[in-house]
Amino acid sequence: MKRAPIYGGIDLGGTSITVGLVDSQGELLAQDNFPTDVARGATAIIDKMADRLQLLCGPGGERFSDIASIGVGSPGPLDLKTGTVVFTPNLRWTNVPLKALLEERLRKPVIVDNDAVAATFGEWWVGAGRPYEDIVGLTLGTGVGGGIILGGRIHHGFQGVAGHIGHMVIVANGRPCHCGNQGCLEAYVSATAISARGEEALKAGAASVLHHVEKPLTSKKIFQSALQGDAFARRLFDETAWFLAIGINNVLNILNPQAVVIAGAVANAGELLFRPLREHLAKIAFPQVGAETRVLPGKMGEFSGVVGAAGMARFSTQ
Amino acid sequence: MKRAPIYGGIDLGGTSITVGLVDSQGELLAQDNFPTDVARGATAIIDKMADRLQLLCGPGGERFSDIASIGVGSPGPLDLKTGTVVFTPNLRWTNVPLKALLEERLRKPVIVDNDAVAATFGEWWVGAGRPYEDIVGLTLGTGVGGGIILGGRIHHGFQGVAGHIGHMVIVANGRPCHCGNQGCLEAYVSATAISARGEEALKAGAASVLHHVEKPLTSKKIFQSALQGDAFARRLFDETAWFLAIGINNVLNILNPQAVVIAGAVANAGELLFRPLREHLAKIAFPQVGAETRVLPGKMGEFSGVVGAAGMARFSTQ
Repeated sequence: MKRAPIYGGIDLGGTSITVGLVDSQGELLAQDNFPTDVARGATAIIDKMADRLQLLCGPGGERFSDIASIGVGSPGPLDLKTGTVVFTPNLRWTNVPLKALLEERLRKPVIVDNDAVAATFGEWWVGAGRPYEDIVGLTLGTGVGGGIILGGRIHHGFQGVAGHIGHMVIVANGRPCHCGNQGCLEAYVSATAISARGEEALKAGAASVLHHVEKPLTSKKIFQSALQGDAFARRLFDETAWFLAIGINNVLNILNPQAVVIAGAVANAGELLFRPLREHLAKIAFPQVGAETRVLPGKMGEFSGVVGAAGMARFSTQ
Repeated sequence: MKRAPIYGGIDLGGTSITVGLVDSQGELLAQDNFPTDVARGATAIIDKMADRLQLLCGPGGERFSDIASIGVGSPGPLDLKTGTVVFTPNLRWTNVPLKALLEERLRKPVIVDNDAVAATFGEWWVGAGRPYEDIVGLTLGTGVGGGIILGGRIHHGFQGVAGHIGHMVIVANGRPCHCGNQGCLEAYVSATAISARGEEALKAGAASVLHHVEKPLTSKKIFQSALQGDAFARRLFDETAWFLAIGINNVLNILNPQAVVIAGAVANAGELLFRPLREHLAKIAFPQVGAETRVLPGKMGEFSGVVGAAGMARFSTQ
């Protein structure tokens, strides 16, 4: 009797890589996580991904033959047609034919897509976005990524680069962003931006217990101080929520999706972020839009990317 | 022999109304334009629209029976399902059942959609956007409207209010907008905003021939002074192009469309606006996106709305 097909998912990050096996209903059957050894270069990293995925299939690789196809969520920009990583500063990769190398290594069809798109797809398939046809996903981590699903399908745009919501400018001539522009959403609400804004305000003399925490300042330390009642840290999260509300409201005005799902490490701040976010949004959104659009934390934690990548392989028509 | 069907189009504006007859290929067969007599109220205005559309059909109304259906582009917000104008400050209408009233009067199927969406649809059907499947349209007039066409279909969003690109905030805490928020694109690049920004700078002491033109200052007078070489007026258009570039680049980052089509009175400024716009965009867009995305002036002048409205009736599946 033929067994049900399963799907491989790979969430490729600059710090760590998650590989997983996912069934056709989106259940994560097994997963493994290991640090990204950037210094060893693309081929070694890709070999390790393939090895670890095979190891997940049991000591003798029993389940490997059940894998129908494999999806990878990768930082970009990417060439979706060829599955090539055009350039990614975190990994120091330039023109790495990720799809071709993995297909050669694993002899299975591989699709490659943007990491934030994969995470959005995961949340849409089996997470917080499941009840909806049209969602926008945001990943708030070291950077700010995005993904758009319209009518139950990923909107890629004509060059495959749609969804770069983090590089929407919300403050013309504002804070410098890694992309070279100024005032991008990412320059205000990423984990990196939250800690940078905090450091600047502390240097400028703001009173806070954060003067006494061990360097370097991180968004996590700011979060913990806020939980402990530090007024400065709370204000920093409230300001972050304000910038995020502006960015999300822009997306609502343009796309009018049913829901916005926010994943990534910063979203772990929970109600400390989401309560002021909803309050700010209620003030600036068109009344009907503010009342009926859901703004939801992701439900899948760190696994939205790996499940979403497998899901993109599952539903791929390539 | 049965004659080919034609379609009625109505472009309902706060200042004037255009009615037209359009064939199934998008050719404008006849049109008429008259001022919107806001003071007379909704019923009188709707009666006049219907009368003028019938008059276009010949002295005895010969062509009226050829009309298969009628489309209306209206300011909003609208309830698309019922064809009701929920509220529009320019017309001072609240909950006007535009579709029902016109259908009762004309005994033809009527569809109602947002005015900027209609204009975008017109430019996509037979204008500058014709070669493309995915376009974003912007109308730069008294306000700033927008429309989104993806895969050759209008993207309405789940409440029918997608495309409100004019109310994307590009300057957090920036210039006040009529919508009640601050820093919207409309508050920088609409005709009203251009003249307001000009007036403020003149009051603040900027040197310009515009100190000597008759009041009130309009974007058209600024345009004419710029054409005559006034440095202040040219700078004002360059700054307008900068804000517009930020707004357009945001849309490119989110949607990655093939083309952006810009219609409306401000777009009549032509190269005075489009040259700096393309220069600013080339600096801030992702290189591949900047190189391959077309940013085009509309081709249909004041008739994009009426032709687009008829086109929406033509292609409506309601």
